[in-house]
Amino acid sequence: MNAPTPAAHLAPVVNARPVPQAFIDALKARFGNNCSTALVIREQHGRDESAFAPVPPPSAVIFAECTQDVADAVKLASEYKVPVIPFGVGSSLEGHLLAVQGGISIDLTRMNKVLSINAEDLTVTVQPGVTRKQLNEEIKSTGLFFPIDPGADATLGGMSATRASGTNAVRYGTMRENVLALEVVTASGEIIRTGTRAKKSSAGYDLTRLFVGSEGTLGVMTEVTVRLYPLPEAISAAICSFPSIEAAVQTVIQVIQLGVPIARVELIDHHSVRMVNAYAKLGLREEPMLLMEFHGSPAGVKEQAETVQEIASDHGGNAFEWATTPEERTRLWTARHNAYFAALQSRPGCRAISTDTCVPISKLADCLLDSVAETEASGLPYFLVGHVGDGNFHFGYLIDPEIPSEREIAEDLNHKLVSRALRLGGTCTGEHGIGLHKMDFLVTEAGVGAVNMMRTLKQALDPHNIMNPGKIFH
Amino acid sequence: MNAPTPAAHLAPVVNARPVPQAFIDALKARFGNNCSTALVIREQHGRDESAFAPVPPPSAVIFAECTQDVADAVKLASEYKVPVIPFGVGSSLEGHLLAVQGGISIDLTRMNKVLSINAEDLTVTVQPGVTRKQLNEEIKSTGLFFPIDPGADATLGGMSATRASGTNAVRYGTMRENVLALEVVTASGEIIRTGTRAKKSSAGYDLTRLFVGSEGTLGVMTEVTVRLYPLPEAISAAICSFPSIEAAVQTVIQVIQLGVPIARVELIDHHSVRMVNAYAKLGLREEPMLLMEFHGSPAGVKEQAETVQEIASDHGGNAFEWATTPEERTRLWTARHNAYFAALQSRPGCRAISTDTCVPISKLADCLLDSVAETEASGLPYFLVGHVGDGNFHFGYLIDPEIPSEREIAEDLNHKLVSRALRLGGTCTGEHGIGLHKMDFLVTEAGVGAVNMMRTLKQALDPHNIMNPGKIFH
Repeated sequence: MNAPTPAAHLAPVVNARPVPQAFIDALKARFGNNCSTALVIREQHGRDESAFAPVPPPSAVIFAECTQDVADAVKLASEYKVPVIPFGVGSSLEGHLLAVQGGISIDLTRMNKVLSINAEDLTVTVQPGVTRKQLNEEIKSTGLFFPIDPGADATLGGMSATRASGTNAVRYGTMRENVLALEVVTASGEIIRTGTRAKKSSAGYDLTRLFVGSEGTLGVMTEVTVRLYPLPEAISAAICSFPSIEAAVQTVIQVIQLGVPIARVELIDHHSVRMVNAYAKLGLREEPMLLMEFHGSPAGVKEQAETVQEIASDHGGNAFEWATTPEERTRLWTARHNAYFAALQSRPGCRAISTDTCVPISKLADCLLDSVAETEASGLPYFLVGHVGDGNFHFGYLIDPEIPSEREIAEDLNHKLVSRALRLGGTCTGEHGIGLHKMDFLVTEAGVGAVNMMRTLKQALDPHNIMNPGKIFH
Repeated sequence: MNAPTPAAHLAPVVNARPVPQAFIDALKARFGNNCSTALVIREQHGRDESAFAPVPPPSAVIFAECTQDVADAVKLASEYKVPVIPFGVGSSLEGHLLAVQGGISIDLTRMNKVLSINAEDLTVTVQPGVTRKQLNEEIKSTGLFFPIDPGADATLGGMSATRASGTNAVRYGTMRENVLALEVVTASGEIIRTGTRAKKSSAGYDLTRLFVGSEGTLGVMTEVTVRLYPLPEAISAAICSFPSIEAAVQTVIQVIQLGVPIARVELIDHHSVRMVNAYAKLGLREEPMLLMEFHGSPAGVKEQAETVQEIASDHGGNAFEWATTPEERTRLWTARHNAYFAALQSRPGCRAISTDTCVPISKLADCLLDSVAETEASGLPYFLVGHVGDGNFHFGYLIDPEIPSEREIAEDLNHKLVSRALRLGGTCTGEHGIGLHKMDFLVTEAGVGAVNMMRTLKQALDPHNIMNPGKIFH
């Protein structure tokens, strides 16, 4: 069997810097068994969920157990000018974790304590290795929840680093709106705090939001304080099938424009439904579908649902299938949660290349429908799911990694999609980040001047360019 | 009559840099009549609403009419290394507009066009000189509104620069959450754009939020894109008196902790009520009062109001006085809107020194009640109003500017209040900014490391330190 030959632009440029043995020795002396140079461990930390061709792994992995561990590791790395890549659960889709310039990985999963729950203030402070599911499990008894839910059970550190969001963002916002404060180890190994637990503040530059979305390139987050929300008194979920994607999308546009405080509204195209039916035997109508959730008081939920049902019916939507118990809701959401795995299984051996454009809601139909037509015409198998209430959606192109031309077609489709989204006032990435994959798109989107300003900030805060170098910009 | 002798720490340190005549000549050549060196104009632009002793005004005022004007003025200033202070309506409370290092003022009030209303996306793009009331007037026909409402009819540019909020922030957030994108003239006179109209994005560093709250120290905002909201189907306002501030505050804490989506909840203490009664003959009970507003569907508003009434009554609140028509609502809100002027009139010739702490909601009673006791004990006349749903409140100390000891007492009270707020996990400024007044507090709040990081950013983006120098940090 031949090794896969990916298209040139999906093989990252590798430019590993020297990692002096004295540095590794110093790490071993400081961290003992918590510094691993075993190949299997290094390989585990040198990849993520992206479709990039593999690159050589980091030279060592530090298992940090406290902030001081991180600070000491970064201080040593700074002395020796060796790159540092923070690592959570490895669920990045954009190559964030690939050691393209060599260096070490700092694994933060042992820093997984919930440090303080301030239920009465609707805030919680956690270590960066806490995952979103773990967090919700640990705060269950408070009657509060943390809404941000990217596909993976990512860590709060990783989610902060990519400015993640998910299905609840349409109502509750993204990590941008929900991180209140951070503890950060800077590129020189200093420990600083940004923000307070106050809900609002005008105290100087917004360092919190500078770090949120910085993809590990400015420092390592070692504590994250986020907002929580009271569990709604009533929750109701429903699915509704539509004769076309356009009908589903027009329904969403009207719901958002009317200001209905819908908690979740996800599009699942007929391909996804077909794949999920095959995967989980759900027996759903193989038509484009909206999956919705309403949060509020019982009366409020009823009112929202009635408004949305009326709009859906105007667009030819079928009768809603309702779920009000947690069990029924889980069954409905299975379709959405399994879409990715069902898609992978629909074409054994394939890889999914995921797009992530986000456009103003009024442009959603324009952007989506043209891209669907283009993708259908390409003949490549794909699925489409989306946080459409935010104007954000993901095509998953299912490519055979053994066939370079498929990868090229997928990249070409993504290129056309991003160009269209930018023309319509949108962004190349709603929630996955730039990483290695979208550096050129970022320049087109933000302009050379703005990207140069980002570079200037990076240079000022990380003069030796050791923090996750080679990501966000060339 | 002797000139007022303010306490030393309220006379700003003036350290004017030379402004070469060649620079003024170049400005005159470029801007003609839109460059003024008339003393009256310069004096108008050399002060704000803060209680600082006057300092010499800027050397010239440029009336910018477009982004290129701003870029050209900043480019010249950069060449001659002369400070630049952006100017809106001059409503800063923290000395932002004082030319403590000399330089020129760029008046942005002629850049007051609403550039594009995207009603279907709930966004609008404006020039920085558009005021919040003008904006709401111009978008009236769309059925949308812009909720951020600081006390003054400030410009969107000024509001972005101070990360302003106001009475609606408890539900709709602050400028931090509501600015989507900016056009900015950098310190070198380059024009860049930050952000897009997409609702969310993970595309690189969050430059938008770096500029929001940067108080004119990193560049001049020349376009601002903000979110709008559908006018609620139903709005209902109510006032309710309480036997004590504690009872009122405990009511608020419970309302917030229950997650009631109240749109406004303002505390007005008995001093304020007394002053407003005298000023506007409102005949309100001279007791601490909450002023609330509920937005939503008719049923939703009713439900929220019932919940809040029940909680208020548990804390000894009197029957609500309701207002549902716009006229009745205006009458009720008069008490809040006139508090500042009523207070000034209650002691002719006085000035108000306003505090701005914000604490986590669970600490609101602790912070507020101890500070009220302290202020009462000082004997200084004062009033207290607050955006208590956010944990943010303002004492207004009414000092006689002729009596230095009163200014000292006020500063001392503020110092104790800020220390208390910081101990309780809060911030020294919820919405007014640091300016000249809170530079030391910022260091205590954020720590030397974080403030040094802010300085590093400033130095990187403005190497000649020409953008509103001497503000935020020494």
